[in-house]
Amino acid sequence: MASTPQQPSNGFREERDTFGPIQVPADKLWGAQTQRSLQNFEIGGERERMPEPIIRAFGVLKKCAAKVNMEYGLDPAIGKAIMQAAQEVADGMLNEHFPLVIWQTGSGTQSNMNANEVIANRAAEILGHKRGEKYVHPNDHVNRSQSSNDTFPTVMHIASAMEINSRLLPNLKTLYATVHTKSIEFKDIVKIGRTHTQDATPLTLGQEFSGYSTQLQYGIDRVTCTLPRMYQQLAQGGTAVGTGLNTKKGFDAKIAQAVAEETRLPFVTAENKFEALAAHDAFVECSGALNTIATSLMKIANDIRFLGSGPRCGLGELTLPENEPGSSIMPGKVNPTQCEALTMVCAQVMGNHVALTVGGSNGHFELNVFKPMIASNLLHSVRLLGDASASFEKNCVKGIQANKERISKLLHESLMLVTSLNPKIGYDNAAALAKLAHKEGLTLKEAALKLAVLTGDEFDQLVVPEKMIGPSD
Amino acid sequence: MASTPQQPSNGFREERDTFGPIQVPADKLWGAQTQRSLQNFEIGGERERMPEPIIRAFGVLKKCAAKVNMEYGLDPAIGKAIMQAAQEVADGMLNEHFPLVIWQTGSGTQSNMNANEVIANRAAEILGHKRGEKYVHPNDHVNRSQSSNDTFPTVMHIASAMEINSRLLPNLKTLYATVHTKSIEFKDIVKIGRTHTQDATPLTLGQEFSGYSTQLQYGIDRVTCTLPRMYQQLAQGGTAVGTGLNTKKGFDAKIAQAVAEETRLPFVTAENKFEALAAHDAFVECSGALNTIATSLMKIANDIRFLGSGPRCGLGELTLPENEPGSSIMPGKVNPTQCEALTMVCAQVMGNHVALTVGGSNGHFELNVFKPMIASNLLHSVRLLGDASASFEKNCVKGIQANKERISKLLHESLMLVTSLNPKIGYDNAAALAKLAHKEGLTLKEAALKLAVLTGDEFDQLVVPEKMIGPSD
Amino acid sequence: MASTPQQPSNGFREERDTFGPIQVPADKLWGAQTQRSLQNFEIGGERERMPEPIIRAFGVLKKCAAKVNMEYGLDPAIGKAIMQAAQEVADGMLNEHFPLVIWQTGSGTQSNMNANEVIANRAAEILGHKRGEKYVHPNDHVNRSQSSNDTFPTVMHIASAMEINSRLLPNLKTLYATVHTKSIEFKDIVKIGRTHTQDATPLTLGQEFSGYSTQLQYGIDRVTCTLPRMYQQLAQGGTAVGTGLNTKKGFDAKIAQAVAEETRLPFVTAENKFEALAAHDAFVECSGALNTIATSLMKIANDIRFLGSGPRCGLGELTLPENEPGSSIMPGKVNPTQCEALTMVCAQVMGNHVALTVGGSNGHFELNVFKPMIASNLLHSVRLLGDASASFEKNCVKGIQANKERISKLLHESLMLVTSLNPKIGYDNAAALAKLAHKEGLTLKEAALKLAVLTGDEFDQLVVPEKMIGPSD
Amino acid sequence: MASTPQQPSNGFREERDTFGPIQVPADKLWGAQTQRSLQNFEIGGERERMPEPIIRAFGVLKKCAAKVNMEYGLDPAIGKAIMQAAQEVADGMLNEHFPLVIWQTGSGTQSNMNANEVIANRAAEILGHKRGEKYVHPNDHVNRSQSSNDTFPTVMHIASAMEINSRLLPNLKTLYATVHTKSIEFKDIVKIGRTHTQDATPLTLGQEFSGYSTQLQYGIDRVTCTLPRMYQQLAQGGTAVGTGLNTKKGFDAKIAQAVAEETRLPFVTAENKFEALAAHDAFVECSGALNTIATSLMKIANDIRFLGSGPRCGLGELTLPENEPGSSIMPGKVNPTQCEALTMVCAQVMGNHVALTVGGSNGHFELNVFKPMIASNLLHSVRLLGDASASFEKNCVKGIQANKERISKLLHESLMLVTSLNPKIGYDNAAALAKLAHKEGLTLKEAALKLAVLTGDEFDQLVVPEKMIGPSD
Repeated sequence: MASTPQQPSNGFREERDTFGPIQVPADKLWGAQTQRSLQNFEIGGERERMPEPIIRAFGVLKKCAAKVNMEYGLDPAIGKAIMQAAQEVADGMLNEHFPLVIWQTGSGTQSNMNANEVIANRAAEILGHKRGEKYVHPNDHVNRSQSSNDTFPTVMHIASAMEINSRLLPNLKTLYATVHTKSIEFKDIVKIGRTHTQDATPLTLGQEFSGYSTQLQYGIDRVTCTLPRMYQQLAQGGTAVGTGLNTKKGFDAKIAQAVAEETRLPFVTAENKFEALAAHDAFVECSGALNTIATSLMKIANDIRFLGSGPRCGLGELTLPENEPGSSIMPGKVNPTQCEALTMVCAQVMGNHVALTVGGSNGHFELNVFKPMIASNLLHSVRLLGDASASFEKNCVKGIQANKERISKLLHESLMLVTSLNPKIGYDNAAALAKLAHKEGLTLKEAALKLAVLTGDEFDQLVVPEKMIGPSD
Repeated sequence: MASTPQQPSNGFREERDTFGPIQVPADKLWGAQTQRSLQNFEIGGERERMPEPIIRAFGVLKKCAAKVNMEYGLDPAIGKAIMQAAQEVADGMLNEHFPLVIWQTGSGTQSNMNANEVIANRAAEILGHKRGEKYVHPNDHVNRSQSSNDTFPTVMHIASAMEINSRLLPNLKTLYATVHTKSIEFKDIVKIGRTHTQDATPLTLGQEFSGYSTQLQYGIDRVTCTLPRMYQQLAQGGTAVGTGLNTKKGFDAKIAQAVAEETRLPFVTAENKFEALAAHDAFVECSGALNTIATSLMKIANDIRFLGSGPRCGLGELTLPENEPGSSIMPGKVNPTQCEALTMVCAQVMGNHVALTVGGSNGHFELNVFKPMIASNLLHSVRLLGDASASFEKNCVKGIQANKERISKLLHESLMLVTSLNPKIGYDNAAALAKLAHKEGLTLKEAALKLAVLTGDEFDQLVVPEKMIGPSD
Repeated sequence: MASTPQQPSNGFREERDTFGPIQVPADKLWGAQTQRSLQNFEIGGERERMPEPIIRAFGVLKKCAAKVNMEYGLDPAIGKAIMQAAQEVADGMLNEHFPLVIWQTGSGTQSNMNANEVIANRAAEILGHKRGEKYVHPNDHVNRSQSSNDTFPTVMHIASAMEINSRLLPNLKTLYATVHTKSIEFKDIVKIGRTHTQDATPLTLGQEFSGYSTQLQYGIDRVTCTLPRMYQQLAQGGTAVGTGLNTKKGFDAKIAQAVAEETRLPFVTAENKFEALAAHDAFVECSGALNTIATSLMKIANDIRFLGSGPRCGLGELTLPENEPGSSIMPGKVNPTQCEALTMVCAQVMGNHVALTVGGSNGHFELNVFKPMIASNLLHSVRLLGDASASFEKNCVKGIQANKERISKLLHESLMLVTSLNPKIGYDNAAALAKLAHKEGLTLKEAALKLAVLTGDEFDQLVVPEKMIGPSD
Repeated sequence: MASTPQQPSNGFREERDTFGPIQVPADKLWGAQTQRSLQNFEIGGERERMPEPIIRAFGVLKKCAAKVNMEYGLDPAIGKAIMQAAQEVADGMLNEHFPLVIWQTGSGTQSNMNANEVIANRAAEILGHKRGEKYVHPNDHVNRSQSSNDTFPTVMHIASAMEINSRLLPNLKTLYATVHTKSIEFKDIVKIGRTHTQDATPLTLGQEFSGYSTQLQYGIDRVTCTLPRMYQQLAQGGTAVGTGLNTKKGFDAKIAQAVAEETRLPFVTAENKFEALAAHDAFVECSGALNTIATSLMKIANDIRFLGSGPRCGLGELTLPENEPGSSIMPGKVNPTQCEALTMVCAQVMGNHVALTVGGSNGHFELNVFKPMIASNLLHSVRLLGDASASFEKNCVKGIQANKERISKLLHESLMLVTSLNPKIGYDNAAALAKLAHKEGLTLKEAALKLAVLTGDEFDQLVVPEKMIGPSD
């Protein structure tokens, strides 16, 4: 949004609040309270600005509030201008007018006022008035029937639910689908199993990948299971302490319905507004699901980089796609960089979860005042898991190839296959055979021939890894 | 269980495994592998023994395994003796024969062998044989068709689901019910609200408590939501790497059904055994729900101790039951000790959650080898939350009394009620009135009279906190 | 830095690496490897860019490397141009040319290449050559004798030590000084003590604040204690795996000395380069100190907001400065917003610590590949704690005023002072007196007079809180 | 300690406190307040009893208190009996008389009273009086000049410092020494390096182990660096709120000196008693050092299990000692069970650190009431790390053998050695050679001969891994 012509972009204008007048950059739409917060909370710098999904959710909510408020008597001209301005916020067009950082008041009041001020000034301009004149009033019009204490938690829920639905779940589903496809592609490749990092009985590479896809599928279920408490807890209508003082009966349900229509997500008003202001357990719970997904992805990415280790001196069972130069002279040195980015993300999500938990446990009386921190950690985890899952899928999993030759070589060198010989030559002979192979570095077959307990044909008939990958009939 | 007469209680007997013979205390039922673990893992001492619910769950599972194994050909005499011995383990009668600590092999193999050895020796005695002679064989009979790798995770699920259902959920529900009852008891007590720890608009004490009961109700939902993945993932039947090698088809479903019958909990076999051995995401998820409950209880207990602070120099709105001497000379100094025990438990649960998360993320290939640590942390959290909820309910919440006089005094001293005067005397007069009261330490009424903006009667008619606790019509 | 005239700002130019050619924005100084990373790691967006202190530290290090490399034969013209370009990076003038995010390869290789490419292109321009032509070569010249594996950890140490010294420690010291000043200012204000949140024996407000200043003083000691391992572990000279292959003997010590001179911090080369590449325990340790400071600040900020709660219905002992409108109509409602920002920061630091710990524990073999995540979390915590301490000092602590009247009122209403009467009237009488006061809501003096155990004068002589604030002679 | 004859071991006796009489098991030395706590805090069961080092430290402290109190006028006969009884507590002889759990009042008051009651009753018996008669009074004699609020934190410091010095540091030093010895033993074994889990340039196995020993050496430094704040903060003398009311001047310094003499550790009295009661930052800091050691040990144990993976299908460079049967039929399958126990311990220590941090941050006003939880988590971590380090050293590291043949085979199969050929045949030829080897599965030498760029002799002269393990002259 370009600044309107009458405002010199490098000058200042005066805005005022109950504290008195204050100078505000003329090319910005924010008002006095935003400006004060900007000066009182110089913490962290621009990187720490309130996350964009929060800003956009403010746009959604303020639009809905104006719509409902018109039903309760808000001047339609003003109401419509607010809706238009709020839509611009929802569309991300006014992001530069939201300069406040996360590290402000713990109720998010200042960001709520930032939204009120920007939307009021922008709506005034739409109606042909100047910014700063409060033709549209940030409190009386934009914030009507609302309090920061019920608005900010509502915005937290809207932003989180939208991000989970638009970014996290689709990307997890795509990753799941690709891993599942790989498990089918690899279903006939028999390989050595490893338990305690040691050689164990065989399984197929497809079975191994099916473990990963199951983890992902459950992960999707896990997040989904927490969403009802994300949708069912819109605080709006609780106002300052949860009682709903200064709103009208029914305002809460109407605004939840408006938000549901606007977002096409099944939001409803919180059945208990006191809980909705004073606690953010729904975020702690949801973050717990993200934390679980992080443990899953950490496991999967670790396995893939170890199975792809080499090219010569590692396990070498998988070949990962090469996306960038690993070593200028060393062909085959493909660093598992996507696994690295993903596992770093997983560690971050685990840390974010603790930050959010600490904040969630420290609410007092009628208001939890760790709101911006809680929201930003959840949104950070959602974004990182969503993006990293997409990157991992596209730049790594999709291109994984099985190194069949190596897999087969390892499998047949293994001593674990000796267990197949028990029925034929007895436990003691089998053990002796394995011991000889281990001691002299022979294959099982070589050892069998040396001990003369079996012919080569008999060995080949008995030792069939393909028959070792399931229960017997 | 008394040791049988022929065994001197202070002597030793020889047991053997593939490593050879080893001396075992004669009055103990365990065998060679248990003894070796005892010597190789001197970590933490007796406090760190495998939690009792795990031992009992081994009893449940081994009983079921014998039952199913009889269908697949296990000698019925031996099978029945195993079932009887296993029942003794399930009943906690043989706890002293389970000396191993959590800090052993990460697959729990040694505890599985401990169970196999104890049950085998006990079953042999039931059949009139001596311990140590392996008439009933720990591997061939008790562990038949099983591997530690699928047995231990199965036991983890059984133990956790049983503890959650028998200890955590009932105690949470009782606590919920008592808090809910209090919220009804207190429904007409209007009090000052507090946001940012500062005076805010009023609400009822019942509304405040309804926030707590809602947190608890959701907490119960949260744990319950994670149980499907606890019930649906019995690993048994996966054997060493998840393929089910060395079991029979159908063994997995049959044993899950037997466990379901035995525990009356809806266990089913894991649809993917690879995931069930290699990951314990179900525990990370469930612990995430417990972590959320810990944040809820931390908030509730903190509120209650602050609302009960005093007797003279704190908030003093609640009177907590006095369970022990607080101060010998200071009547009314009731330390909120139940709140303290509970909040310490909450902090522990948050820590346990991180330990468990780290373990859950560090599985490799076909087997996660942080199993005993993961299980013990979940069981620890379940036990602590369950017990502390019960203690808090019985020794604190049930006896909480509202200090009505104090609540009323604070409410009427508050300046927040000035907002009721806006419609009558206008915003500017109301603000001036409040400013005067604040500056000179007057009540609002005193200030109103001093400013002569209202009569005393008018004030009393307008300032009615009872009308400030909900939205307007 | 303006782009040079011959490069159209909206066009592209071709850069190449061993993977082949790639299009790069013409107005940017980065090269092919940076561009590839940008495309392969679309994770988190611009907020997640490598923190600026890392970029600046690259400038410092590359300047020093050029200087030392000239001693070992690097062409002086090229060397000097590199030094000049690197200085521009160190000065933050080329930040826009560092677009890569944290979530890249875990060795930070791509950011090292980003630095090499930007400095090479900029140095080439300084020498009158075009960017992209590799007149100054990113690898052969800028990265000479270096590997990403020893460069990135060196940069981590430089950036962290600089930020701790320039931002965290000064701000903590100022906060300490102000709290200490307050403890002196308040040294004669006797107030009620509170243990278990309950009334206890008195102390002075100065004593209470001295506890806070002691926490801060120790916090400064704690961070300082970890710095030796931050200074003594420059990895540079270890190259790819810690052996120093492809460097010259002495290169490591020389470059550490150059860095020490450049930064005026006592850096030395790591005595063991294998540890310096494969582990980042120094970061985990340092973060542990930050985590401790976070617990200290959380305690202090919580106390201050509770002591400042009110204005009428809380403890009300402190008056906090009012920095922004709290409530438009409610004078005296000063929300403790600085406490809120600070406690949110503390929670974040605790979370960052866990993220960093998880990353620190997951290194494998010769290289820990959670480097960018570890570095960014430490820098995040340092920045947040430093900035929030400064904000808290300036906008809160400095302006705290004792509400002497309220403090005195609470103190004298308290029943704890009864303990002073023991020597005179005996334990039993004292207890009876206190019991009466508690029961009937009297002051101790009123109760004493009612029980006729003391005259008013005697009471006033005996009950002197000022004598209760230290041990007896 | 046997109960005295006049007390029937299965009966009860009456004890009383200010709450009135209560029945106590006749064979137990504890009194009324202990019994009440036992009934009011049924949380966690016997496993959750206050850790033994705390009990013993109570013995140490109460002995010292009696000694100092005699200087201030305590009856010498009673004083000496207290000292004798306290010594029995310090020696662990009366452990069964300390039944209270961690989850009690957060000040540890009840455990302090438990110590007072047990010592008073035992001292009375020593003097020929009956338990329960208070000939020696728990408060007036044993607890003289003390408050729970300064006693319990003092005990926390004593217990922790003693355990760190007697259990953790010696075991870490032994582990360090053994790892260091291994690094010397392995100093000539050249092996392939691995970065990003991928093949990299070579180093010696000794160099690799030197990274581990450096981590351990720094870990010892780290804990040691935190000890000053453990020694310098004895709270005793602060009494209820830190002022020292009801003690004599000098009591604090004298008792710290007595404790220092008794424990031979350099304890001094806290310079600020307010901090010493209200915060436990020293524990959070020390736990941070333990957390760092946990990350180090996690890394080391992970490396060792991966380097020892196999026997055929893993890396196989190390052979770990076999302490128990891995697989009955599979020779060479040695599960790295010591690594598993150790890494589980590391995860637990990380979790304990978070629990302790949360508790440390939640103190209010003059008293942190998470004391027992904080103490038990630190002691748990110290014990686990100490014991697990000893077990790992004795049962794993000491017996590690290098599998030289395998190491050499992997090294010479590697393609990374090609970098040695650059100077002779040029970068392009070297790259072509490596590419051929990679594509056709040849060794570098085979590829060199096939490409005819070198003779076999030339190859052998140029490709000498032993020359690749350090910087050039």
